[in-house]
Amino acid sequence: MAERFEIVEKALRQMLEDKKYNTLRDILITMNPSDIAAVFAGLKDEKIPVMFRLLTKELAAETFVEMEPDDQELLIRGFSDNELKEVLDELYVDDAADLVEEMPANVVKRILKQADPEMRSAINQILRYPEYSAGSIMTTEYVSLRPTMTVEEAILRIRRQGIDKETIYTCYVTAKDRTLIGMVTVKDLLLAPDDEMTIQELMITNLIFVSTQTDQEDVARMFSKYNFLALPVVDGEGRMVGIVTFDDAMDVMEEEATEDMELMSGMTPSEKPYLKSSPFDLFKNRIPWLMLMMVSATFTGLIMTAFEDALAAQIALSAFIPMLMGTGGNSGSQSSVTVIRGLSLGEIQFRDIGHVLWTELRTALLCGVALAVVCFGKIFLVDHLLFNNPDVTLAVDLVVCCALCVTVVLAKIVGCLLPIGAKALKLDPAVMASPFISTIVDALSLLVYFLFANWILGI
Amino acid sequence: MAERFEIVEKALRQMLEDKKYNTLRDILITMNPSDIAAVFAGLKDEKIPVMFRLLTKELAAETFVEMEPDDQELLIRGFSDNELKEVLDELYVDDAADLVEEMPANVVKRILKQADPEMRSAINQILRYPEYSAGSIMTTEYVSLRPTMTVEEAILRIRRQGIDKETIYTCYVTAKDRTLIGMVTVKDLLLAPDDEMTIQELMITNLIFVSTQTDQEDVARMFSKYNFLALPVVDGEGRMVGIVTFDDAMDVMEEEATEDMELMSGMTPSEKPYLKSSPFDLFKNRIPWLMLMMVSATFTGLIMTAFEDALAAQIALSAFIPMLMGTGGNSGSQSSVTVIRGLSLGEIQFRDIGHVLWTELRTALLCGVALAVVCFGKIFLVDHLLFNNPDVTLAVDLVVCCALCVTVVLAKIVGCLLPIGAKALKLDPAVMASPFISTIVDALSLLVYFLFANWILGI
Repeated sequence: MAERFEIVEKALRQMLEDKKYNTLRDILITMNPSDIAAVFAGLKDEKIPVMFRLLTKELAAETFVEMEPDDQELLIRGFSDNELKEVLDELYVDDAADLVEEMPANVVKRILKQADPEMRSAINQILRYPEYSAGSIMTTEYVSLRPTMTVEEAILRIRRQGIDKETIYTCYVTAKDRTLIGMVTVKDLLLAPDDEMTIQELMITNLIFVSTQTDQEDVARMFSKYNFLALPVVDGEGRMVGIVTFDDAMDVMEEEATEDMELMSGMTPSEKPYLKSSPFDLFKNRIPWLMLMMVSATFTGLIMTAFEDALAAQIALSAFIPMLMGTGGNSGSQSSVTVIRGLSLGEIQFRDIGHVLWTELRTALLCGVALAVVCFGKIFLVDHLLFNNPDVTLAVDLVVCCALCVTVVLAKIVGCLLPIGAKALKLDPAVMASPFISTIVDALSLLVYFLFANWILGI
Repeated sequence: MAERFEIVEKALRQMLEDKKYNTLRDILITMNPSDIAAVFAGLKDEKIPVMFRLLTKELAAETFVEMEPDDQELLIRGFSDNELKEVLDELYVDDAADLVEEMPANVVKRILKQADPEMRSAINQILRYPEYSAGSIMTTEYVSLRPTMTVEEAILRIRRQGIDKETIYTCYVTAKDRTLIGMVTVKDLLLAPDDEMTIQELMITNLIFVSTQTDQEDVARMFSKYNFLALPVVDGEGRMVGIVTFDDAMDVMEEEATEDMELMSGMTPSEKPYLKSSPFDLFKNRIPWLMLMMVSATFTGLIMTAFEDALAAQIALSAFIPMLMGTGGNSGSQSSVTVIRGLSLGEIQFRDIGHVLWTELRTALLCGVALAVVCFGKIFLVDHLLFNNPDVTLAVDLVVCCALCVTVVLAKIVGCLLPIGAKALKLDPAVMASPFISTIVDALSLLVYFLFANWILGI
């Protein structure tokens, strides 16, 4: 499918080049805004306004929302005040707020000047909420009903107001002071046995709602748990201020999963899509973590220096260090990633710490013993019998395998406890993932190794 | 919020214990099915049927869908044929198909016997599609309209048919032979200027649809791209066979992200939620990867054995091996995780391979040089000046830093190329993540290290 789209994109670019504007427009108006935005992303800067002016008003606005911030900025800078106003009038308030957040200050000034007063105040309201809160991703445009309305009146109101609302399918019932008291879906309205029934009789009152301060990750989790189309957002006094719709929740889910993956592999989450990032952007996100982990590896180095004499006496020992550290690191990151994901999906809570620890301990013992047995056999067969290495005695083999088993157990315990601990301290558990745990486990595995070497080999 | 829910849960369990069934029922019927299911998950087995029988018919079915498979099985085994039929009649077809997939054979037989013929055939149809395909997650219940209907007739049809459909908000227009020809939303119908307009005039014809064979991950990606409530599924002849709804797409998104994280940290994706997994389940998912990576570390061991004499001659060198391997592994996994996520979100395609390689190469050089400079300074200050370690000469310092820089560059190149290569070979790119790449990078970093040692120190 991606290949087919590329062909279409190329053909459209050629038409633009050849100034076949009528044909181009006829094709564009049959396309989905997201796909048109993808075509814009591949155009040269000077061609963007030309093609944008071919779109119909509504399609232009819908496409604009889907475009990359730098293309949006380029367009706005080229717009007349009138053109800017036309696009703004078609935007939903939450999209307009996103736009204002992305643009540089002088562009923002122009946007706010051209937005109508109602939208301007709504944008300002949304921007006042903390980043990553329900308030910052909500829209203030929703259909509100009164409990005394009949089904017929409600449908009439939806018909009158619906055109400007992002969703009409979930309507919220509010009292005179805007307190949220119930919810009714268009499905309920359409399937109501009697048009004269009141909203009061039809509405659901055991509502699930979030506050403006709720973290967007918790909001997204509620969507995937309850399968809602929209979720009402209330202020501290229980007054309805907006809704979050499922598509925004989907975006949050995707963003949060990406962020977790980035943190887990030791990167600062990036703001830009990969193909738009410069090497310097990537460098800035990656280098602090690499530096931190490099410097913390100094401890491992110090441990090795401390046991330099032991290593020199039994040089065969050092050949197994990478395997030991690697297996320890992998075991630890298996546990940490499992626990981090469980925490972020809400499957694991702090109160489960005992259960998690007990499960991981038993899993670790199974893994540790299995690995140690196989490792013992492998060293015996390969190093002892096959390569006939005189340095690798049975005693050395025993040291390696005992250290391996203990390291795996320690790694899994550290791996499961650190993320839960981070959560309890209100830190992001994903920070406690593989690279961080590897550093700790590397040091632990060395200590264990040299302890067994001292104990069994007497060095 | 989790804490508050725990208190409610405890109170409900106590009421059940005290046989206060009326109060219990009054509270349960105000709760959301997902939350009731969570209460069931915490009950003793013998209490589950008791509480389930307190629920109203519709709520019982809705709760049943949200319950864990083992609780569902327990209930079905206890149901009379009549009770089973009542629950099944309330289920949506896709939920019934999911249930059949989860249950053991003898339970499935009872379910299919009690399902009405229409549902039985729909379940069988869904189960015939390959796992993880659009066909396997779709539902066959949707509202279909004819192009010649008027808006009024269409609304009437929705009112008559809607009660059994999972969504009524997106309706599909089909020809007599069931070919999909258009789409119309309830919003369009309600906001239509004139009730006598025909569906033909109102419908959207530039449809986005998927085939029954489309991979569920691609389906989910289309939802997050286009923000649809539902996506139509057609067969090879373009005939409409079902729809996928946004809530199923959300579940797929979550599952696929979890799966990627599990694969990336060297685990076979698990079928069960963590808290329901036994240590042996976890062991089975984790041990093959640990074994594989342990055995492949043999190469690293062999390289170290080959250079045993060099290490013995310059014992200080071995102290830097963990830092070198660790930094290399971390650099590689940064690149691989970034690329894997980009591939799975569709942000990066195979054709971008040149762009990705060029970006990673420059990023790697920036990171490599920065790390080498800091490392040189650190070794000079700490090992040379502070600890006054006579083994760590400036030449050794130089070897470590040159090797570090080259390792980081190699690691990032391997890290970005392997996932793209895997994708081209139709393998899951996530398999090519940190643990796998670490093993390669470990071996590479050692080779580079000893090469520089040989070159600069002449050993």
